[in-house]
Amino acid sequence: MLDTVIHNGIIVTVNPAFDIIKNGWVGIKDGIIDLVGTKPADEPLPKAKQSMNARQGIIMPGLVNTHTHRAMTLFRGLADDLLLQVWLNNYIFPSEKQYITPDTVKMSTTLACAEMIRSGTTTCCDGYFFEDDVASSVHTSGLRAVLGQGVIDFPAPGVPNPSGNIKVALAFTEKWWGVSPLITPSIFCHSPYTCSFETLKKSKDVASSKGLLFQIHVAETQSEWDQIQSKHQVTPVQYLDHIGILDPDTLLVHSIWVDDGDMDIIATHGAKVSHNPSSNLKLASGAAPVVDLLKAGVTVGLGTDGCASNNNLDLFQEMDLTAKLHKVKTLDPTVMDARSILKMATINGAKAIGLGDKIGSLEIGKSADLIIIDTEKPHLIPMYNPISHIVYSMKGSDVRDVIVAGKILMRDRTLMTIDLEDILERMVKLGKEIKT
Amino acid sequence: MLDTVIHNGIIVTVNPAFDIIKNGWVGIKDGIIDLVGTKPADEPLPKAKQSMNARQGIIMPGLVNTHTHRAMTLFRGLADDLLLQVWLNNYIFPSEKQYITPDTVKMSTTLACAEMIRSGTTTCCDGYFFEDDVASSVHTSGLRAVLGQGVIDFPAPGVPNPSGNIKVALAFTEKWWGVSPLITPSIFCHSPYTCSFETLKKSKDVASSKGLLFQIHVAETQSEWDQIQSKHQVTPVQYLDHIGILDPDTLLVHSIWVDDGDMDIIATHGAKVSHNPSSNLKLASGAAPVVDLLKAGVTVGLGTDGCASNNNLDLFQEMDLTAKLHKVKTLDPTVMDARSILKMATINGAKAIGLGDKIGSLEIGKSADLIIIDTEKPHLIPMYNPISHIVYSMKGSDVRDVIVAGKILMRDRTLMTIDLEDILERMVKLGKEIKT
Repeated sequence: MLDTVIHNGIIVTVNPAFDIIKNGWVGIKDGIIDLVGTKPADEPLPKAKQSMNARQGIIMPGLVNTHTHRAMTLFRGLADDLLLQVWLNNYIFPSEKQYITPDTVKMSTTLACAEMIRSGTTTCCDGYFFEDDVASSVHTSGLRAVLGQGVIDFPAPGVPNPSGNIKVALAFTEKWWGVSPLITPSIFCHSPYTCSFETLKKSKDVASSKGLLFQIHVAETQSEWDQIQSKHQVTPVQYLDHIGILDPDTLLVHSIWVDDGDMDIIATHGAKVSHNPSSNLKLASGAAPVVDLLKAGVTVGLGTDGCASNNNLDLFQEMDLTAKLHKVKTLDPTVMDARSILKMATINGAKAIGLGDKIGSLEIGKSADLIIIDTEKPHLIPMYNPISHIVYSMKGSDVRDVIVAGKILMRDRTLMTIDLEDILERMVKLGKEIKT
Repeated sequence: MLDTVIHNGIIVTVNPAFDIIKNGWVGIKDGIIDLVGTKPADEPLPKAKQSMNARQGIIMPGLVNTHTHRAMTLFRGLADDLLLQVWLNNYIFPSEKQYITPDTVKMSTTLACAEMIRSGTTTCCDGYFFEDDVASSVHTSGLRAVLGQGVIDFPAPGVPNPSGNIKVALAFTEKWWGVSPLITPSIFCHSPYTCSFETLKKSKDVASSKGLLFQIHVAETQSEWDQIQSKHQVTPVQYLDHIGILDPDTLLVHSIWVDDGDMDIIATHGAKVSHNPSSNLKLASGAAPVVDLLKAGVTVGLGTDGCASNNNLDLFQEMDLTAKLHKVKTLDPTVMDARSILKMATINGAKAIGLGDKIGSLEIGKSADLIIIDTEKPHLIPMYNPISHIVYSMKGSDVRDVIVAGKILMRDRTLMTIDLEDILERMVKLGKEIKT
């Protein structure tokens, strides 16, 4: 007997054959996908504790956000249209210093989780401070996550003395190791220009010794590139390579200012890339050479980055933007087709954060992390090709139901694990206390 | 006594002072804005036939879409990720030939109107074939529109003999002149490479003699530029200038492949530009030099283009994309700030299609074309700056109420002028008849 059976939908599996199954059904048992296929015409539904009618919508893998800082929902729209250094030094850093506490992190993370569930994200890789409080909120939300406590060689929220930064990050990973199958601890080093050689090396050693994902912002801006070049006479990617940081468990976030040599290095070591187009464009950092990264054989996932530089967490928007950005960058409309984009937001994102064997596609034996899209809307009709609609027409608000590891987190747009009214009320109140 | 009073909202006026009014109220009488301001604390609401509580959401001008082909909703997602000529010649033109009829145009236009209302667009400039049927559907929807029957020197739907194209376009303008204050007829010439010198000149003469807006696609692709250059030894913009087409009543759609000289010509003549970033990126046509166009003093509005190259009609998405695209294009995050973008989608769009004195801002004496945004959502909280949220966080699905000329077209997400269930059902059925 199944726990849940979902029927009467178009299944976009994102399996290796990229099967699209009309009139499909999906069976879930103990949080795992037990059945995926076409429902035979006259066969009754299999026995299950509950059944969900997809109402001819799309059943697809939940989206994977490979990079964000959830708690930064607190600073959504606080400051826009500014030079990066002005934005960081005059707005974001002072606001973090003044307002980021365990309590505000918990609340802002819960808000982010609500937004993610409502826009179809089921897994998210996060790096921030007070990550223990991030983990606690994410755990309650029922979302899947890879979480890293931030390591930076400056006084940071919760880590006033940077000499203890790796110790705090390590303690976080030990505390959350094995607590839940949905929470995977990780190490998040801020960047090659805000962490010393020693900090970078030690952090990676800690991550390697425990088999954890190592996340790092790299080659985000031209000024970072200039800084590393002038200090070390190499590119940021070469610098990380010299330290020994690049391997299949390293996620290089942004990777905008990379040349052919850098891409070869990334590919050779099997390191992964998180592409965050909204943030990169909004901050005018540049457009990562994603077409070339893919050609070089690099696994690339999508990320929203934090809300302060996006300003939302809707991965459907990132899919559309990624396709369009790289078409115009290369002046070639055939690159980054809808199928490649959907893979970036699902299976390749999962691979990028070390979860490719568990999630990212709807296949028997994988975790039941999936979403159902309501397609009975003017902007989704007619539908000749569901993949085209997912990438070019849909928005997060079209997601109707969300399931993670078999558990329903949203049903008919109602959140099941988060008291939405309560968190909105508390965040409105908190927002009023922030001086802008 | 007012017809309608709207209260308890933040009014984003987009008036010349760009006033933002907290706890504002708006009064409407005979379709015209009669009151805009702060509601005094103890004053009761003015007498009105109906009152609407904005529930602390945002009250703002309805959005203005300066370019689309509504009926192309029929081809939404029919073909993507293709070279422009393959897309046009192998998919769009054959589909138009086979499936575009007065009936399919009416239905597809009604679908487009539903999508527009649901995403906060209150005015749209359109050019297509069977425009009489477009006008009839738009008229029923209650939206405001500038509409042009397409003129092209090839056999086209409804105009098998191109020698009659101007006559058909003229007859359309005469039929719809004065029928409704919401419908403004116009002339839509397809482009300088699909219309002869004579066709362009005569069409513009017809438009000028009647004081109508003249819409034309121009400088959309490099191949068009090459073609005009090789045939006439001038740029597309210079070519139109030589014919005498450029004046304040001409709307140049796309204007991607324009140089400094072209921009000076456009500015000097007071011609307007419609910027369609989604379509231009998806077809890899290029990114129009909007920052330079604005610097040159050109009025630029936003457009979605048709659904086949977007693939939706959500102007909130175009706002976000326009800001981000031009920041990365110039590597300057301070350009195209949220306020400039909002003006493009409202007042400047209105000016671009000749309606700047009637709509585009909430001011006493202007038409009551406005929308109310529901801000009680996770992705819109906290809110430090409503303009930032409008441009960088919102989606069309956040629009709760839509009013055009004082008439409510959508209330609490329910369409009042279109039978949504009926049109969705008919369009699903029609979609199934299309061979892809």
